[in-house]
Amino acid sequence: MTLAIHPLLGIPEVSAGDDLAPLLLASLESADLVLEDRDIVVVTHKIISKAEGAVVPLAGNDDDAYRAVVLDQSSEILRKRGRLVIARTKHGFICANAGVDRSNAASGTAVLLPIDPDRSAHGIRMALEAATGASIAVIVSDTFGRPWRRGLVDVAIGISGIDALLDLKGTTDAFGRELEVTEIAVVDEVAAAADLVMGKAEAVPAALLRGLDISGGDGRATDLIRPAHEDLFR
Amino acid sequence: MTLAIHPLLGIPEVSAGDDLAPLLLASLESADLVLEDRDIVVVTHKIISKAEGAVVPLAGNDDDAYRAVVLDQSSEILRKRGRLVIARTKHGFICANAGVDRSNAASGTAVLLPIDPDRSAHGIRMALEAATGASIAVIVSDTFGRPWRRGLVDVAIGISGIDALLDLKGTTDAFGRELEVTEIAVVDEVAAAADLVMGKAEAVPAALLRGLDISGGDGRATDLIRPAHEDLFR
Repeated sequence: MTLAIHPLLGIPEVSAGDDLAPLLLASLESADLVLEDRDIVVVTHKIISKAEGAVVPLAGNDDDAYRAVVLDQSSEILRKRGRLVIARTKHGFICANAGVDRSNAASGTAVLLPIDPDRSAHGIRMALEAATGASIAVIVSDTFGRPWRRGLVDVAIGISGIDALLDLKGTTDAFGRELEVTEIAVVDEVAAAADLVMGKAEAVPAALLRGLDISGGDGRATDLIRPAHEDLFR
Repeated sequence: MTLAIHPLLGIPEVSAGDDLAPLLLASLESADLVLEDRDIVVVTHKIISKAEGAVVPLAGNDDDAYRAVVLDQSSEILRKRGRLVIARTKHGFICANAGVDRSNAASGTAVLLPIDPDRSAHGIRMALEAATGASIAVIVSDTFGRPWRRGLVDVAIGISGIDALLDLKGTTDAFGRELEVTEIAVVDEVAAAADLVMGKAEAVPAALLRGLDISGGDGRATDLIRPAHEDLFR
């Protein structure tokens, strides 16, 4: 099984009300790609937020206004240091600045996370499947930091047509021992893989991953949120 | 730029003293793959640890003996709950059970992390480059959990011929604004991507990633370790 990851190029700047599926299909077509069963389309949340109008003005492009938006988007503040806030979003994700971002946003505005990224993923999947007849998965990604490790990685914040976790419980290793590691966050690994062809500055907001034979599930990205009582680092 | 990720199949069970480069080259050859400049070979640490003899016996295959090995491999214990220990390894990585693992280990033994995974990566790279003439990168991976998010993902614990972090400082977005996100943990994203073709049970301990035009750096995986004074979650 060889995986291929294609950047989806040529997607124009997106505005509120835009329909993303035709833009994704046009990009695929210009690369001579036709969606097939089990393909996974990864879309950065930013163009989804913009299409859904999840963009707010910042009065005077002011840092204070930005901080107020971050607080408004947070359900809990875990840590604060200088300009950095680590917050739990209303969806339950824990990330910097509650996912509110001024990069790749028009001057004087900030982009929020989609209100329901799983639903956003589902909508895009339904539209792409209706147009092509292929049974696919869609993953909505964002760029998160991590404790303990420098640097950012892309993770999944919305999914459709795939399970968030690949559960290996009951699987035995080459020695017949039951695996201690049982749940792989496969959609996070797909999001990270897709980021390798996206870059941050070059405006490649989507990618196609082909060759992974695990789509077809019915999970939600919120399945990835570790319940507070299981979490040793809250 | 399209990425391809190939599993490296047919690598036999590895024992202390085995030379990994010929095994990797035989696997590549059987898949009709010839290493090219900028290829990235990802190797799970487990076969490196075994080849380097970083395997310890557990007296009576006893959980107590396992816990003693975990403590011995730890430089600091961050959290403990039931059987789970979150520890800082002697390298500085923070992970479950200090990276000591009984999966895919012979009965009554546990596999440690390599003593110096960056050096292990370098050794494999030198051998593969000498055999093929290609300028490549090598990444040694392990499977880590994360706070806040369920499921495990593969990350880089040793690298050679590539920088750990892709620094976008000074890069501007489509609106001319300097990016707030500046450091991408690109080798962690490569490790995660490679895990998609590896599985856990099927003994695919290596993968080839082709198409990423960023190798050629001179970093270390320890560059990924966030200094304690910058870390909000120690």
